[in-house]
Amino acid sequence: MAETFHTFYQDLPLSTVEKLKKIKMVVLDVDGTISDGGIYLDRGDNELKKFNCKDGMGISLLLKAGIEVALLTGRISPLTERRAQELRIPHVIQGQMEKESALLDLIARCGLSEEQLAVLGDDINDLPLYQHAAVSACPRDGYHYMKTIATIVLTSDGGKGATRELSDLILMAQGLTTPEGNPTFLKERALKLNAIGQ
Amino acid sequence: MAETFHTFYQDLPLSTVEKLKKIKMVVLDVDGTISDGGIYLDRGDNELKKFNCKDGMGISLLLKAGIEVALLTGRISPLTERRAQELRIPHVIQGQMEKESALLDLIARCGLSEEQLAVLGDDINDLPLYQHAAVSACPRDGYHYMKTIATIVLTSDGGKGATRELSDLILMAQGLTTPEGNPTFLKERALKLNAIGQ
Amino acid sequence: MAETFHTFYQDLPLSTVEKLKKIKMVVLDVDGTISDGGIYLDRGDNELKKFNCKDGMGISLLLKAGIEVALLTGRISPLTERRAQELRIPHVIQGQMEKESALLDLIARCGLSEEQLAVLGDDINDLPLYQHAAVSACPRDGYHYMKTIATIVLTSDGGKGATRELSDLILMAQGLTTPEGNPTFLKERALKLNAIGQ
Amino acid sequence: MAETFHTFYQDLPLSTVEKLKKIKMVVLDVDGTISDGGIYLDRGDNELKKFNCKDGMGISLLLKAGIEVALLTGRISPLTERRAQELRIPHVIQGQMEKESALLDLIARCGLSEEQLAVLGDDINDLPLYQHAAVSACPRDGYHYMKTIATIVLTSDGGKGATRELSDLILMAQGLTTPEGNPTFLKERALKLNAIGQ
Repeated sequence: MAETFHTFYQDLPLSTVEKLKKIKMVVLDVDGTISDGGIYLDRGDNELKKFNCKDGMGISLLLKAGIEVALLTGRISPLTERRAQELRIPHVIQGQMEKESALLDLIARCGLSEEQLAVLGDDINDLPLYQHAAVSACPRDGYHYMKTIATIVLTSDGGKGATRELSDLILMAQGLTTPEGNPTFLKERALKLNAIGQ
Repeated sequence: MAETFHTFYQDLPLSTVEKLKKIKMVVLDVDGTISDGGIYLDRGDNELKKFNCKDGMGISLLLKAGIEVALLTGRISPLTERRAQELRIPHVIQGQMEKESALLDLIARCGLSEEQLAVLGDDINDLPLYQHAAVSACPRDGYHYMKTIATIVLTSDGGKGATRELSDLILMAQGLTTPEGNPTFLKERALKLNAIGQ
Repeated sequence: MAETFHTFYQDLPLSTVEKLKKIKMVVLDVDGTISDGGIYLDRGDNELKKFNCKDGMGISLLLKAGIEVALLTGRISPLTERRAQELRIPHVIQGQMEKESALLDLIARCGLSEEQLAVLGDDINDLPLYQHAAVSACPRDGYHYMKTIATIVLTSDGGKGATRELSDLILMAQGLTTPEGNPTFLKERALKLNAIGQ
Repeated sequence: MAETFHTFYQDLPLSTVEKLKKIKMVVLDVDGTISDGGIYLDRGDNELKKFNCKDGMGISLLLKAGIEVALLTGRISPLTERRAQELRIPHVIQGQMEKESALLDLIARCGLSEEQLAVLGDDINDLPLYQHAAVSACPRDGYHYMKTIATIVLTSDGGKGATRELSDLILMAQGLTTPEGNPTFLKERALKLNAIGQ
């Protein structure tokens, strides 16, 4: 019987944990991934997206742990930029029809390899992301086909914990957070959570 | 025992699959069908509706496969027009008290027959649509009576996957998408998903 | 074994059906009853409430059947007025600290008695409504104490079907809609659903 | 077998009830606690948060019972101020990076001790609150680690009943509300629910 790594979300195969240990960058799709997939339109030309505070905390924890975070989406929306600023996400790539080349560009610019890359995406337009990452993750409510090919199928929905879960699984595999969710690395490194980052 | 067609959503009777194979147009109701049924009002005269990115992808896939898509609603709202523009839906019919004649007009104009028509609607004001379509589909959270008469009761809620499911079932029946959800026709026809269409 | 009246929502005791047969007016609370209970605030002075199209259809069906509908809420909000106008609800009573006297006033003005009154409310500030109505109904997600004293505990949540369910149960008890949800009275009386009223 | 105190939410150990009896102040986190955790951003610089009317009623009941209520959040948002004003919450502390010292300040100013303090928080930035309160409570959908250390794990979600549940449990333990949710103290003290406070 294969051994597994226990976390409060799910038990991971050790082969997945080995991959998670090497992750140095997380690339996130926007709609349905860090948002709940809702496209809230008004009668004029405004639009809302619903993000989530616990997901924001996950991104902040990654950044505090020294892991790069990027948003990558084919659409262009000021909303994505705003969310990135709130969370101090350094890399935001929008409006790239060719997600694949945009992704390869990004990791090259950061001096990283595909082995160090984890991606989170919920639908078939994220296929290029999945193909170039050591770890691909799909929200629980992601599109079925993506779940059949993802490295990790998360137990949380997009825009409602999926980003936090992937962040946590990386930090847990790297020994920075306990399997129960205590981010012990903050104290060990004398880092403080601040108000920014949710 | 009757044979069925397996998809990841549900197993379809072969008689339904035969109908789905002939579909050349999909007519969609708006509230509770491509929206979540919520009427978000503000203190002034603005309003929001919540659409869904995975449903948008379903509509885009239909259009790429050469299947016509129309929105048909008795209400008039700039929101419906906006959503249609985002998704490049060519036919938008609003404010037609007589949904029945509006529908018959539309299919006549497009040179189609009722055999080639699928409709998605969630409540009793969609009865006229159901009566003139080879395939009528009702969201999981649609009104009970509609579910008792629909050709297909979907496993997804309105504004949360129902449109994607109907789109997928058509594409699956027509052999364009695998029963697991892989839209293989895109590669076969050298089509690209672009950023528009969610 | 007591006989019951079957509907697709739930089976009702015959004693409840006898009460429902006499109903000529339905008084609805707003927050958590015809809305989902959410208080959506923005950074300025605007606010959103989320109503529901299927609930709107329920109210329209009551009005078409000749049953009076009123909104009664202690708060004052332009939102309530807007929703009432959309649905052509004739009676809107806001800002009445004393819900009890406002209710008694209303039924007196309409020449009705408490035997002809059904109310829908979700929380303890609706107690005065419950005390003066032959039929009191509580949404599934209403406050526990209200459910212990309501005539009918609905199977649907506030702002997500509760109003439709109460409307339907009244119409079903009065023989206007079938237990499966077909509003046969519309055809029998040559009434048409129009676009208004969702 | 240890005896427990029965409420309609959950059965509480008597040791917890003893703590609840002494509570004179409730300090509430905002995002994910009195809100649903959603960060709704628009294309400009506006933002929405979703609060809940039943939670508002819980806060009003606490205030009517003479228990202090405070909002304490690291972020600064006019939304928090607005919600506090609607509910007449006297203490609002925002933008305090150091939640711990802000909390200690607050209870000192009010002449209270940690024995008299209950807190509600959903994520790891609320750890300082948990450490200084006799009773710490975590919403059902709060972060796992917080649930492992909270005095009470609530059966309701943040922004959807969690605040009402904690309020009720305090009032129930203090004999002001029945275990079924009837706030009998209102009548006994001749207090009236008014329209404000939801």
